[in-house]
Amino acid sequence: MKILLINGPNLDLLGTREKAVYGPTTLPEIEARAQEKAKALGIELFTFQSNHEGELIEKIHAARSLGIHGILINPAGYTHTSVAIRDALLGVGIPFIEIHISNVAAREPFRQKNLFSDIAVGTISGLGPYGYILGIEALHALLGTETR
Amino acid sequence: MKILLINGPNLDLLGTREKAVYGPTTLPEIEARAQEKAKALGIELFTFQSNHEGELIEKIHAARSLGIHGILINPAGYTHTSVAIRDALLGVGIPFIEIHISNVAAREPFRQKNLFSDIAVGTISGLGPYGYILGIEALHALLGTETR
Amino acid sequence: MKILLINGPNLDLLGTREKAVYGPTTLPEIEARAQEKAKALGIELFTFQSNHEGELIEKIHAARSLGIHGILINPAGYTHTSVAIRDALLGVGIPFIEIHISNVAAREPFRQKNLFSDIAVGTISGLGPYGYILGIEALHALLGTETR
Amino acid sequence: MKILLINGPNLDLLGTREKAVYGPTTLPEIEARAQEKAKALGIELFTFQSNHEGELIEKIHAARSLGIHGILINPAGYTHTSVAIRDALLGVGIPFIEIHISNVAAREPFRQKNLFSDIAVGTISGLGPYGYILGIEALHALLGTETR
Amino acid sequence: MKILLINGPNLDLLGTREKAVYGPTTLPEIEARAQEKAKALGIELFTFQSNHEGELIEKIHAARSLGIHGILINPAGYTHTSVAIRDALLGVGIPFIEIHISNVAAREPFRQKNLFSDIAVGTISGLGPYGYILGIEALHALLGTETR
Amino acid sequence: MKILLINGPNLDLLGTREKAVYGPTTLPEIEARAQEKAKALGIELFTFQSNHEGELIEKIHAARSLGIHGILINPAGYTHTSVAIRDALLGVGIPFIEIHISNVAAREPFRQKNLFSDIAVGTISGLGPYGYILGIEALHALLGTETR
Amino acid sequence: MKILLINGPNLDLLGTREKAVYGPTTLPEIEARAQEKAKALGIELFTFQSNHEGELIEKIHAARSLGIHGILINPAGYTHTSVAIRDALLGVGIPFIEIHISNVAAREPFRQKNLFSDIAVGTISGLGPYGYILGIEALHALLGTETR
Amino acid sequence: MKILLINGPNLDLLGTREKAVYGPTTLPEIEARAQEKAKALGIELFTFQSNHEGELIEKIHAARSLGIHGILINPAGYTHTSVAIRDALLGVGIPFIEIHISNVAAREPFRQKNLFSDIAVGTISGLGPYGYILGIEALHALLGTETR
Amino acid sequence: MKILLINGPNLDLLGTREKAVYGPTTLPEIEARAQEKAKALGIELFTFQSNHEGELIEKIHAARSLGIHGILINPAGYTHTSVAIRDALLGVGIPFIEIHISNVAAREPFRQKNLFSDIAVGTISGLGPYGYILGIEALHALLGTETR
Amino acid sequence: MKILLINGPNLDLLGTREKAVYGPTTLPEIEARAQEKAKALGIELFTFQSNHEGELIEKIHAARSLGIHGILINPAGYTHTSVAIRDALLGVGIPFIEIHISNVAAREPFRQKNLFSDIAVGTISGLGPYGYILGIEALHALLGTETR
Amino acid sequence: MKILLINGPNLDLLGTREKAVYGPTTLPEIEARAQEKAKALGIELFTFQSNHEGELIEKIHAARSLGIHGILINPAGYTHTSVAIRDALLGVGIPFIEIHISNVAAREPFRQKNLFSDIAVGTISGLGPYGYILGIEALHALLGTETR
Amino acid sequence: MKILLINGPNLDLLGTREKAVYGPTTLPEIEARAQEKAKALGIELFTFQSNHEGELIEKIHAARSLGIHGILINPAGYTHTSVAIRDALLGVGIPFIEIHISNVAAREPFRQKNLFSDIAVGTISGLGPYGYILGIEALHALLGTETR
Repeated sequence: MKILLINGPNLDLLGTREKAVYGPTTLPEIEARAQEKAKALGIELFTFQSNHEGELIEKIHAARSLGIHGILINPAGYTHTSVAIRDALLGVGIPFIEIHISNVAAREPFRQKNLFSDIAVGTISGLGPYGYILGIEALHALLGTETR
Repeated sequence: MKILLINGPNLDLLGTREKAVYGPTTLPEIEARAQEKAKALGIELFTFQSNHEGELIEKIHAARSLGIHGILINPAGYTHTSVAIRDALLGVGIPFIEIHISNVAAREPFRQKNLFSDIAVGTISGLGPYGYILGIEALHALLGTETR
Repeated sequence: MKILLINGPNLDLLGTREKAVYGPTTLPEIEARAQEKAKALGIELFTFQSNHEGELIEKIHAARSLGIHGILINPAGYTHTSVAIRDALLGVGIPFIEIHISNVAAREPFRQKNLFSDIAVGTISGLGPYGYILGIEALHALLGTETR
Repeated sequence: MKILLINGPNLDLLGTREKAVYGPTTLPEIEARAQEKAKALGIELFTFQSNHEGELIEKIHAARSLGIHGILINPAGYTHTSVAIRDALLGVGIPFIEIHISNVAAREPFRQKNLFSDIAVGTISGLGPYGYILGIEALHALLGTETR
Repeated sequence: MKILLINGPNLDLLGTREKAVYGPTTLPEIEARAQEKAKALGIELFTFQSNHEGELIEKIHAARSLGIHGILINPAGYTHTSVAIRDALLGVGIPFIEIHISNVAAREPFRQKNLFSDIAVGTISGLGPYGYILGIEALHALLGTETR
Repeated sequence: MKILLINGPNLDLLGTREKAVYGPTTLPEIEARAQEKAKALGIELFTFQSNHEGELIEKIHAARSLGIHGILINPAGYTHTSVAIRDALLGVGIPFIEIHISNVAAREPFRQKNLFSDIAVGTISGLGPYGYILGIEALHALLGTETR
Repeated sequence: MKILLINGPNLDLLGTREKAVYGPTTLPEIEARAQEKAKALGIELFTFQSNHEGELIEKIHAARSLGIHGILINPAGYTHTSVAIRDALLGVGIPFIEIHISNVAAREPFRQKNLFSDIAVGTISGLGPYGYILGIEALHALLGTETR
Repeated sequence: MKILLINGPNLDLLGTREKAVYGPTTLPEIEARAQEKAKALGIELFTFQSNHEGELIEKIHAARSLGIHGILINPAGYTHTSVAIRDALLGVGIPFIEIHISNVAAREPFRQKNLFSDIAVGTISGLGPYGYILGIEALHALLGTETR
Repeated sequence: MKILLINGPNLDLLGTREKAVYGPTTLPEIEARAQEKAKALGIELFTFQSNHEGELIEKIHAARSLGIHGILINPAGYTHTSVAIRDALLGVGIPFIEIHISNVAAREPFRQKNLFSDIAVGTISGLGPYGYILGIEALHALLGTETR
Repeated sequence: MKILLINGPNLDLLGTREKAVYGPTTLPEIEARAQEKAKALGIELFTFQSNHEGELIEKIHAARSLGIHGILINPAGYTHTSVAIRDALLGVGIPFIEIHISNVAAREPFRQKNLFSDIAVGTISGLGPYGYILGIEALHALLGTETR
Repeated sequence: MKILLINGPNLDLLGTREKAVYGPTTLPEIEARAQEKAKALGIELFTFQSNHEGELIEKIHAARSLGIHGILINPAGYTHTSVAIRDALLGVGIPFIEIHISNVAAREPFRQKNLFSDIAVGTISGLGPYGYILGIEALHALLGTETR
Repeated sequence: MKILLINGPNLDLLGTREKAVYGPTTLPEIEARAQEKAKALGIELFTFQSNHEGELIEKIHAARSLGIHGILINPAGYTHTSVAIRDALLGVGIPFIEIHISNVAAREPFRQKNLFSDIAVGTISGLGPYGYILGIEALHALLGTETR
């Protein structure tokens, strides 16, 4: 089972600034923990971060030739503005789970508009870096039992 | 560590009708699996389901004298309408995670109004009965490390 | 053919107050006339009134084990606020007709939001207590010919 | 007792197209059944269908000289757009019941704007051609007892 | 100087019903008084009333070949709904004044949407049948001095 | 018959600037023409202009002791913002007609909010300085025949 | 003179949690002070608290047979959501004053929707537990002089 | 292959007024060019223009008995207001393309509401009279290959 | 303890007009009763009424040098429109209670916008002139116990 | 005559996924057909596709030095979100036609917001890959005759 | 070159209260610094502050006879509510720059409505008292080079 | 003191097109003048322009390692759409001033949505290229005195 973990803009700053909001964990640490979890579950995990909308779109396109079974994506700032990334996910037709580190529902009004949730399998929000671990477990369960 | 699992209105119907939306698992089965997970993590799990807004409020009030550390709640239909249950959760001040079996973001417009998410620690939505297992793990992690 | 007639909050006050709006007929009189009509059409009619959202939900749940074929419901004040009763009706999957004694469309703006009409077979509104008689006739016709 | 049954635009297509939405009954059949019901109740029934807003207005004007006591109207597409027909009904001051064959509440957003319901005696919606029969019964009851 | 006075739907009912709202004066009386005023000012006055949107459009088209210099129009119910009549007035490019007998601003919310005022020279509203006399005076003054 | 003509803020600039919008006539000229018209109709005309909301309110209060029968008011910029002047007009209960020199309906969106029209007898808008003459005629007719 | 004091959901928590928002006074203390005030004014005071919408409705129904002259109600969380309690108050037709301990206007947007104020005699908000004392005084004055 | 070309209200004015907006071409010229194009493609082209909503509805109804395969319609002012013409097109179930001569998207806000586009095969807007030629080509391609 | 009682525009008309809405009591009577109450509570009461927004602002500024401890204000028509008076109250930082004689919540939609309530200590509305007495009592209690 | 054909994000997926929505034709096939059409009309056609907003902007900038006379653009997902691409088109001032393969008007609400149509010459939507051919014909006609 | 610096309501409180929001500088200090800057640039600077909307309007009117070339205005609370001051600025036609000491965009929702910015040359917001210095420089540059 | 000047999409076109809107100055000229001003104030100025959202984000990230004290940013078209650039600015926590060459408040409605102003120190808008000079002065003053 192959899973692609995608992180959107500014997540490369994790753990170095705004720790009150996003916590002290860095993105490499999150990716390492996710790899560990994936390995334990027999999953091959690919990771990718970009601040460029176009690169995120093209990585999603590439997921098909990589044989990815499920995507875990934190679209960050593009959550609220990118129809194009949404269309990429619809285009490749791979099931995905949406992750947010902070509790988006408790933040600014413009963050309440979401272009991903309605086409995701599901969403995990506000549970910090641990949300990525839960997301891998969830994809594993969903893809394993094909209950979706 | 004590956790209270609360299920709101109509969740007693789970597994017997509308299986296409909510899946074939019944509420007792979900509660049993949650108990199993809780036991494995050393958590004492209390479960409660009611169709009555008042009873849900009063169970949340009772959580204080029960010494509950965290609440896992699926408010179901009251998610979109109950200021009173929201106020009960604010009143007792116990951290809680909100769970939805189906992907609420993909459903009717009136379900997009949510009175719980902004005061929850976080939300898990659309991941089926497995969401409850993830919720217990998440509460365990959050309460255990007091990182919240 | 079994039909369940459900009346929501404050309808137990019918005929004793606000006669200008709701007319002089009491709820027992309405139920008696409905029984008479039902008998004439060979229908077994069950009646229920409650001011409690939770009790209304549970009576709808119970309709399945009662073998009810169709429901006639006047949700009264819950028409505009109860996602939970809506979910109960969706949950049991029994066809229902929505009744209102007064002409809701001519009343306050907040009464123009309706959580039932779009999932009802149809709606009868503003025709006074006579609307219940028409509702029984309509359910009889619809269930009898299975034209729905 | 004289009743005028008015059908608005496109209802002359009934029974020949879109049967999934409107059923297989044609307008002449509906009018015939309505005549039958009317006769049984001692009502003189006039029927009229037009696709022209102006003709519908003028038929309503004419109702006064015809001595009509009540109007049964399905404004169809004009339900949502015709202030002028609304004004005609207000102008002649004859009580009317609004009928819709399909359940308008379950259809497009622009159909949720209604220019007739708030000045009607009441509304019957979603009950198919049988709604016309119920409408005649209701007008008969209302006009007969002058309870309105 | 030639002026065309156009009255829209239901204004043929004037003076016979809803006298509380529109007063006791009939349309022929209004037209007679307007003719009298026009004569006094040396204006050739054409009058027209129709309940048909299409006929109103075509009369406006005809105004060009009639050599009309100004139009006085009470669009009545079409005030709020007819883009097509608006387009006709824009199409012939003849200056017009909009008249309303009752005070539209004090009526239903849907009457607050107006498709004519922003392209009219001006509007006279709420001054009863006398508004027509004022409208003729105003057109006379405006066209006479070409101050517009 | 006594009439009070009130002009609101910036109307003292009339005829000296923005002639393209408001024309070349000055306020004294308008008041002189209005006086002339008033005299011809046997009306005693009082005139007042102020840029101060409070002064306008107090002049309206004073209208009672002056024995004013009708008010002609161009609230100018306060049309869209002054609940207090509206309340003053309601408070003294003297019938008034609202005048606007330019066609307000063709201007900025914030000018479409009007706090006076719904409590006015009627409105004359877009007819330039001539609107004041028409307003005096209209008040004369209305007060004379007491048809309001 | 008989007055009924009704407190809605979560007010049984008063004084034990969220003291920063609601203060340190408990509900029994508030009721005791209210009793004292009532006694001083010669009022028979009945008190009731419930977290159940249905029980609140039924207590309001019961007020008629209790011979209650005025109601003092703090609907708490139901202020913003319960059409059914509103209908109960309309149904029994007893004048009532609405009380809020905290200043609702300074809180969340969803608390700005209020289903009670427009049918109340008046509202006292933000004045803490002392608001109840003022409410009793106000009801006493209003009922005593029948000035309402 | 039979195609029906329908033009709505005021399009009979084309080429004679408002040339800056709609260009100098008259409707007969447009229809002649369309006939030429149709002939070249082996299409039998029927043309119709009306200012009457009812006549447009009835021509659409008649398309079925005429054996029309595709409709090209410029609803003009009815684009934004006619649910009834929309219902006629839905009723006959013939695929249609919507044409606008001017660029509707660059015009007034009320023209941004469109009752046809979502049920059309597609829309051609802003390309002047040439849009009709493109529309015939498009219908020819679509109907010819049945790719729709 | 020093309290400033401020009354906004048109309140000088109290008791002389619109008695059905505001009652028969005049402003001097209200101020006299308030003085009486103040004296009984050992409060030095200053009173002020103005129809001028600027004067109200400057009186609030002056409250600081007067050593005022609390303000009782009925902003009347400025309640819904004056950011400047709001800013004055914020600027001087003196706690204030907002009073309305009539029940604002039951009046026009534009009165539902309130620029004062969210920064007030609390609001008393709809209780007639008696509201002022309650307001003085409330300020006395609040300032006396410094519980705010 | 030089034309630039620009395709936005995800259009490189055409023909390989979501064929039900976008058809089986690939982008290279569309471009080939467009080249063929261009050649037949004596047009030099440049083609470009990118998933990167910045690259699309810069290609539009480059159009000036390429001497492009007209642009055919399918902004895809950026249609609804990119002010920056809109500004680029305004900046270079080259006339353009907007193309959409699917009928955007029949899709999600967020797709109804369009940042291009109001500054385009015109729009062709819902006509599949054939829309590109029509677009080239239209640009050819418009640029050739300079009728725009 | 003559410049008029206008400060609106409550700015006379600057530096004495709410220093956290507006800083410790008083209005006389700001005016003194502005005078210094003006002198350095060879500008004759007039300053004015008022809490009265009417006085602000009349000072703007007076700017014409004073020969003012440019206005620097901080409308403070009237920014969001005064159509009348806006009209005064439009009336005199003198270019102006709008200044705000605090960052209005970061404050209450009702402060996001601005009646001045769209007719200003430009706006300087959030830069504290220094914004006035920048405003004088900007007016100097703009008026000096007549580049506007 | 180090300042970073960032210009967003299409600003590389400055001075070559749309001169009526943006003036004749090119971006290199603006940057040169800014450098000159910076030098005069002892500031080290870095400049950057990009049409790519991702590059703008990454330049902002890089500002931390460059030791930038303040940012001057004209986000151009991304002002209204980029949550991701906003998040980058929040992420690095460097104070910034927002610049716009044209007066954004006087332009299209979609430009009234701004994702930067509320987190900026302040905004300078509509003052042309001179705004950049003012922005440098302002940052110099703010950073120099640490008054923010």
